[in-house]
Amino acid sequence: MLRARISPSNSLHRRLAASLKHARSASTAPAVKLNSVGKDDVAHFSSILAPTSIVSSLSTAPATEDELDQYNSDWIGRFKGQSTTVLKPKTTEEVSQILKWCNEKRIGVCPQGGNTGLVGGSVPIKDEVVLSLSNMNKIRSFDPISGVLVADAGCILQTLTDYVAPHHHIMPIDLGAKGSCQIGGNVSTNAGGLRLLRYGSLHGTVLGVEVVLPDGTILDQLTTLRKDNTGYDIKQLFIGAEGTLGVVTAVSILTPPAPQASNNVILALPSFKNVLPLFQTVKRELSEILSAFEFIDRTAYDLAVKHGQGRALTEEEVEGAECFVLVETSGGRREHDEEKLNDLLENLLTADEPLINTGVLAQNPAQFSSLWALREGVTEAVSKEGKAYKYDISIPLSSFQEVVDSTREHLRSKGLLHDKAVKAVLGYGHVGDGNLHLNIVADAFLPEIQDALEPYIYEVVQNLRGSVSAEHGIGAMKTHALPYSKSQVSIDLMKKIKNVFDPNGIMNPGKVLE
Amino acid sequence: MLRARISPSNSLHRRLAASLKHARSASTAPAVKLNSVGKDDVAHFSSILAPTSIVSSLSTAPATEDELDQYNSDWIGRFKGQSTTVLKPKTTEEVSQILKWCNEKRIGVCPQGGNTGLVGGSVPIKDEVVLSLSNMNKIRSFDPISGVLVADAGCILQTLTDYVAPHHHIMPIDLGAKGSCQIGGNVSTNAGGLRLLRYGSLHGTVLGVEVVLPDGTILDQLTTLRKDNTGYDIKQLFIGAEGTLGVVTAVSILTPPAPQASNNVILALPSFKNVLPLFQTVKRELSEILSAFEFIDRTAYDLAVKHGQGRALTEEEVEGAECFVLVETSGGRREHDEEKLNDLLENLLTADEPLINTGVLAQNPAQFSSLWALREGVTEAVSKEGKAYKYDISIPLSSFQEVVDSTREHLRSKGLLHDKAVKAVLGYGHVGDGNLHLNIVADAFLPEIQDALEPYIYEVVQNLRGSVSAEHGIGAMKTHALPYSKSQVSIDLMKKIKNVFDPNGIMNPGKVLE
Repeated sequence: MLRARISPSNSLHRRLAASLKHARSASTAPAVKLNSVGKDDVAHFSSILAPTSIVSSLSTAPATEDELDQYNSDWIGRFKGQSTTVLKPKTTEEVSQILKWCNEKRIGVCPQGGNTGLVGGSVPIKDEVVLSLSNMNKIRSFDPISGVLVADAGCILQTLTDYVAPHHHIMPIDLGAKGSCQIGGNVSTNAGGLRLLRYGSLHGTVLGVEVVLPDGTILDQLTTLRKDNTGYDIKQLFIGAEGTLGVVTAVSILTPPAPQASNNVILALPSFKNVLPLFQTVKRELSEILSAFEFIDRTAYDLAVKHGQGRALTEEEVEGAECFVLVETSGGRREHDEEKLNDLLENLLTADEPLINTGVLAQNPAQFSSLWALREGVTEAVSKEGKAYKYDISIPLSSFQEVVDSTREHLRSKGLLHDKAVKAVLGYGHVGDGNLHLNIVADAFLPEIQDALEPYIYEVVQNLRGSVSAEHGIGAMKTHALPYSKSQVSIDLMKKIKNVFDPNGIMNPGKVLE
Repeated sequence: MLRARISPSNSLHRRLAASLKHARSASTAPAVKLNSVGKDDVAHFSSILAPTSIVSSLSTAPATEDELDQYNSDWIGRFKGQSTTVLKPKTTEEVSQILKWCNEKRIGVCPQGGNTGLVGGSVPIKDEVVLSLSNMNKIRSFDPISGVLVADAGCILQTLTDYVAPHHHIMPIDLGAKGSCQIGGNVSTNAGGLRLLRYGSLHGTVLGVEVVLPDGTILDQLTTLRKDNTGYDIKQLFIGAEGTLGVVTAVSILTPPAPQASNNVILALPSFKNVLPLFQTVKRELSEILSAFEFIDRTAYDLAVKHGQGRALTEEEVEGAECFVLVETSGGRREHDEEKLNDLLENLLTADEPLINTGVLAQNPAQFSSLWALREGVTEAVSKEGKAYKYDISIPLSSFQEVVDSTREHLRSKGLLHDKAVKAVLGYGHVGDGNLHLNIVADAFLPEIQDALEPYIYEVVQNLRGSVSAEHGIGAMKTHALPYSKSQVSIDLMKKIKNVFDPNGIMNPGKVLE
């Protein structure tokens, strides 16, 4: 029954086929013809920018390919452009003049923040100008009373975190890449990260943006207001637009007060069926101090332990556990928070029909870190085990295990589940956000595995009304997969909106929309 | 110095004048010609809808003017349209067919929810068809695990609140009008209300919408996902569009777990200067359980007491108090919350340089309600005192008192502050949200008072980069004031977006954009 529900139905197959056909026919419309950067263009940029703000093989002090490479390649080495020219403006006015010129000359522009994205959104596809925001890194203002921070787009997330810390505030987002990702890039990709369950998405916490539109117009919506009902909330379009509508040059963002204390606990569950009632119980008992509820299936747990993570639970405690949950609290007073967490654990363990086999509460900061390391160590363990096909999807919480299991069965039915092909299918992720990381670990990347996985997984996601990209975005990597999560009506509207902002198609061409 | 900072500068005057001129010249472009509803149209609607879904003076069973009046008039009696025809569809498909027809025939459509708005957004200006969502009132689904509720647009907020209560969830918004306002209207006006400080705006809590576009196309973005980074977040445009881009027919919204306990305290402050450090202290000490921080100035307090609200503090305690603050907590465990609130009060009272004169903590539910009644009674007291000019503005927290005082001085300088003209100028509102309710109470509505207040107040708001409509919207009432809060670049983009969705201009004509 379950299998039937999540397998793509015939009618869906047809709907999707029609949708993809439509998408293809739309994309066969004559593409916008963009021009390459020439020496004249670089000479013009020299009249706008300081010499140190230009890295170009066409300038009078030509850059080497190596110098350009860090801007042309993404950090995982999957995407590589051939840009000849990188511009690093220092002011919004400079960005405006660059875009005005590129728009008139029909030169493509690829805005680039920390270049930490996962879908190739921040590197050029061909020879677009790379517009790096790295030199725009001033904090414009911080109001310790309201907690509103206004910062240039190129400010690094960690720098901002450090800046607000003495005022007892934190950034509403936190990412693994925080040491190099930039706030403008965070906003442009609508970064999710570890604090979303508690502080919500950037659509709620970003109060304003300053954007340079492709024709050079500066759109100043850099308000610091929490409430402003004066017309359409245009700034929202730039949150997650991946630089395809304009260049975000500054951001106004609401920073929450810092919690005074954090703690965590790992719970072993006899069955995935218990995850959902457990989530309800935990939400009810911990209420406003719950800050993470992370799921790790048994395969993921075993893999993390195999590849060196500390065993949080004894072998005996792990016996019979089908999956694990990591619960984190962040609150205003340590003794209250600990009392709540202790009571929760006691109630869970002494229940008539316990939802958990066992649980371990962190007793000190070292244990706190070690429990998180187990959860975060899954990624590393997967790389050590083999080659990984990774899917970052949003689906209903109730289908997490179902999707992992049915993917495994699907691969088995194709004869691909054995030592020389797929070694493991595992799931982990943010139950609280409905975000599952589905990993398929193989001995090697093989076309038959790829063909077995796609479009299979995208169809499963579509059938569950899920998202083929929960937090990473579309970039250059998933433009073909967009129809699995967005209807043709939505995609058509996106194209019309793109056309309103960027009629010449110079902004980050080839990203988001095909 | 302060006065100088918030008085409109000359350069601002010039900038605004230019902006208004531009706005006017744009509005002199030939307006879209819309047609009146005829008998043929009503006959066509009869082929789509059940007879009980049509209220029209042009139908075979003609409605009286009285029957139409409730749809033509807003509840405060300030706006009145002359619609002959009200349609009350029961399904999204019916809405689609109505809009398709109206779009082809160039008939204006005014979507109407509970008709509880404050800016005339939900009643027709001329004889547009009124499209009432009242018959679309089914709850489509509720997932008690994720807390995601999917409901027809016409569901009443209180009904939804009652529906999720047994699951220990609450709606993320709460309004005075909750007994009659509808969730589709809440979303279309981006309603703020009493819970914004705690749960954020609808831009964060609304996960998806179903919208019928003017040409009848159904845009299905009714996702229940917390995370979905697949292209532009188009649904955001409908949040706060006041029905000018399409008709919201269903909403998917995240409902938070219900708090287990609430409490409140009223604090008397010797000076407004103390409000801001107090806000910081309260945020730090109460952290995640702080759910309201409301400001009442002395004039507002005295007026509420004069007109019958219980005196929360003794005459002695009130002596020397320049303003008052109401703090509310909502948390997961009563004893913890009370301990935090008690400690806060003790720390405030025993500080070396106390920020407050005194404070009173509610000891039981009756006192809790009575403290809220004092805050909420200001509105009623103002109506009893005289005729009120009301401004719902967002400005930086630090300028709250300054704006109230400078408005009073401005009226005094015009010779209007005396018994036969302006009797009181007062301020109260949501410090936590930066939302000030500025009220000018007069003996009667007089043109010279109106002229002294506008554009003066709008200019002050503009100079502070504030919002001329924090939570009520623009509707029909404030289209002329939009340029004080939005730049011409923003307004031009809004017009282009309007044109993408509604090229024939049939949706709620005359609202938001002139």
